[in-house]
Formats: sequence, C-alpha cells, structure tokens
Amino acid sequence: MNQKYPSVLLENAVNELASLPGVGRKTALRLALYMLRRDTGYTENFASALLSLRRDIKYCKVCHNICDQEVCSICSDPRRDRSLVCVVENVKEVMAIENTGQFRGVYHVLGGIISPMDGIGPGNLKIDSLVERVAAEEVKEVILALSTTMEGDTTNFFIYRKLAPYAIRISVIARGVSIGDEIEYADEITLGRSILNRTSFNDSIKI
Amino acid sequence: MNQKYPSVLLENAVNELASLPGVGRKTALRLALYMLRRDTGYTENFASALLSLRRDIKYCKVCHNICDQEVCSICSDPRRDRSLVCVVENVKEVMAIENTGQFRGVYHVLGGIISPMDGIGPGNLKIDSLVERVAAEEVKEVILALSTTMEGDTTNFFIYRKLAPYAIRISVIARGVSIGDEIEYADEITLGRSILNRTSFNDSIKI
Repeated sequence: MNQKYPSVLLENAVNELASLPGVGRKTALRLALYMLRRDTGYTENFASALLSLRRDIKYCKVCHNICDQEVCSICSDPRRDRSLVCVVENVKEVMAIENTGQFRGVYHVLGGIISPMDGIGPGNLKIDSLVERVAAEEVKEVILALSTTMEGDTTNFFIYRKLAPYAIRISVIARGVSIGDEIEYADEITLGRSILNRTSFNDSIKI
Repeated sequence: MNQKYPSVLLENAVNELASLPGVGRKTALRLALYMLRRDTGYTENFASALLSLRRDIKYCKVCHNICDQEVCSICSDPRRDRSLVCVVENVKEVMAIENTGQFRGVYHVLGGIISPMDGIGPGNLKIDSLVERVAAEEVKEVILALSTTMEGDTTNFFIYRKLAPYAIRISVIARGVSIGDEIEYADEITLGRSILNRTSFNDSIKI
C-alpha cells in the first residue's frame, strides 16, 4: 500500500526506522510518533548514542570482540585462562556464554560463520588470526562453540583442518537434550547424538 | 537478568533502543549489532532523519496535523471542502482516513482523547481551537471520528456539548459490523448497534 505521509520529515524518519531488521512500516510510524511525543532531548540522546556506537566502537585486537579499548576487558583480565580459547560467531554468543558464569578462558570472535549462500567465505572471518594465536603457542585447547547448523558444522570442520597441525586439543560444545526439556519432545537427531555422546553419570552430577 | 555488555558504547546504544515502545533488550542488541554491520553512513542517515523530524517538524496552524509548512497540504488544498471537518485523535487516523479515498473535507487533530487515567483532560486537547473554527462560521458539519471506546465516547460527548450552541450538523462515524466480517462472530454490542442504526438498502448499495 502506497501510504501518503503528511510530512516529508516524517516519511524520511519512517523510512529509516523501517530499514531496521524486523521493523515494519506501521511499527516505524508508531516509533516516529513516539519520538514526537517525547522532548527533543530524548531524540538527541537517542541519535548520539547510536552515532557514538558506530563511530567510536573498537574491536579487541586479540579476540576481535567489541570493546572500548585496544584490548577487551576479558583478554586483559589476568584471572582468565589464556590457554583456553572459545571460538564463537559473534559478540552475542560471548555475552551468552559470559552469562552462564561457567567459562574462565578467553574468546575468539569469528565475526560470522561460513555461509556460501550469504557470500561469506573463510576469508571474511577471523580464522587466520585464530591460527596465529594457536601458532604463538600460548593456547592449549580450542573449544568450538558455533551454531549447531550446517554452516556451523562446515566452519567447525574448516577450523579443525587449519588447526590440525598444532599439538592442541580441539573440542566442540556438547550437543544434547536441553536441561528442562522432556525426552518425548526432543528431535531425533539431538536425541540420537545425546545417546552416542553420553557421559558417565559421575561426571554429569558434578555440574 | 543483569546482562554484562563488553562495551559502554554498546550498552548505551542498547539502552536507548530498548527505551522505544515494544522494543526489548534482546531486540535492541540485535538492532545495535545490525548498525555495526552496516557502514557509518547508514547510522548517520538514520540519526539525522530522526533529529530532523524532532527538531523541524511543524504542526498545521489550522488543523494541528503534522506537516512541513505553516498550513498542511490538506488544509491548503483548494479542492477540499472546508465546511466539512472530521475530528480525529492523531495523525495516524488522518493517514488511515486519507487512505480510504472517501473523504473530501478537512481534519481537526485533537492530539489525543480525554483519558483521566492517563492524566489527559480536555485542556490538553485542541478542543478550543475546534470551537473557534466552528465559531468562524465556515464549518457546516463536524464528523466525530474517534475510537469507539469509553474515552472516545467521553470526548465525543464533551465536544458535542461545546459545539451544541452553533447551528451546525454534528455526526459520528457509523459503527457496525465490519465489511467482510461474519455476523455470527460480531460482538453483541456492535451487532446491536448495527441493527438500531440500520440504513436503507438503497443507501447502502451506493457505496
């Protein structure tokens, strides 16, 4: 539907808001009108926070995670185990794993996963710098914590091949039935894997 | 959950995005990361469109609709019937009615409806300026097109009392079963009203 806006300024703002993923034109109009109801300072703070983020954001030169300094707070934390590197797709996964409070190693953020459909090949990802970190001999184990999808598996395999020449342990996060899930409703592939990769009962109660 | 962000800039941007109505913190993070994936120009255009909207928006001095000039394009259109004024809550309703292509009169945007729960009284709305427009004797009919809610009915009644001294027609948009709806599923109040306010069959086929 070719909606007619009473103002070009409103139409431009709606166009920009609707360009965000998951925001349709109706929502965009609602958001624009919300900004008009708030004072000017609100929109000024809103715009300046986004501009600062985009202009001043840095990426950690060790793990490539988003940060405010040259090296991120995780990589520069002396209590973290630098010999244990968890490979993740993006900053969202770093935050998710940090929230578990279970991991005391460091990260390596690839910036995506291999996905030929989206035009993302190994060259677009921070795989070379992972190999460099491993070659520098500080790393003892690399944990691959990518999505359990075809693309994730492809990327896992690619990294595995690149790291195979080095004398380190390469592991993959456990895949199985989610905690709190009923066996009855687990999909066959997950359930099958969880039986193949079963752990000793003594190990499982340690968590 | 007290999410820990790897960057203060990211956290600020997420806070601002999450302050929008209907946007949670997970969505806000997704939107912030989307901006980081796009080039800087994208965020600059985005921010400047919102700032321009908030700083430079004007309200029509006749009907109070959002516009770019002193008088909006509808009020200044010589083909519109200035004797027919449709009273609406907000710019969204103007856009919805304009989209029908059925209305050739002009509007009066109240800027809300009377809602004591939200602290909105008649003094917060553009009711006085509606009375002035009617008193200026150009108006022959006022159509009340507010929401069919308790607040809408209250506002309708308030405006009706204010305009009663003037020799004009005051009408309310028809309320009845939506076109395409099945009678079986219409609620009782709507169905009851649609029988009480039935129109002659000859009138109904004109549309």
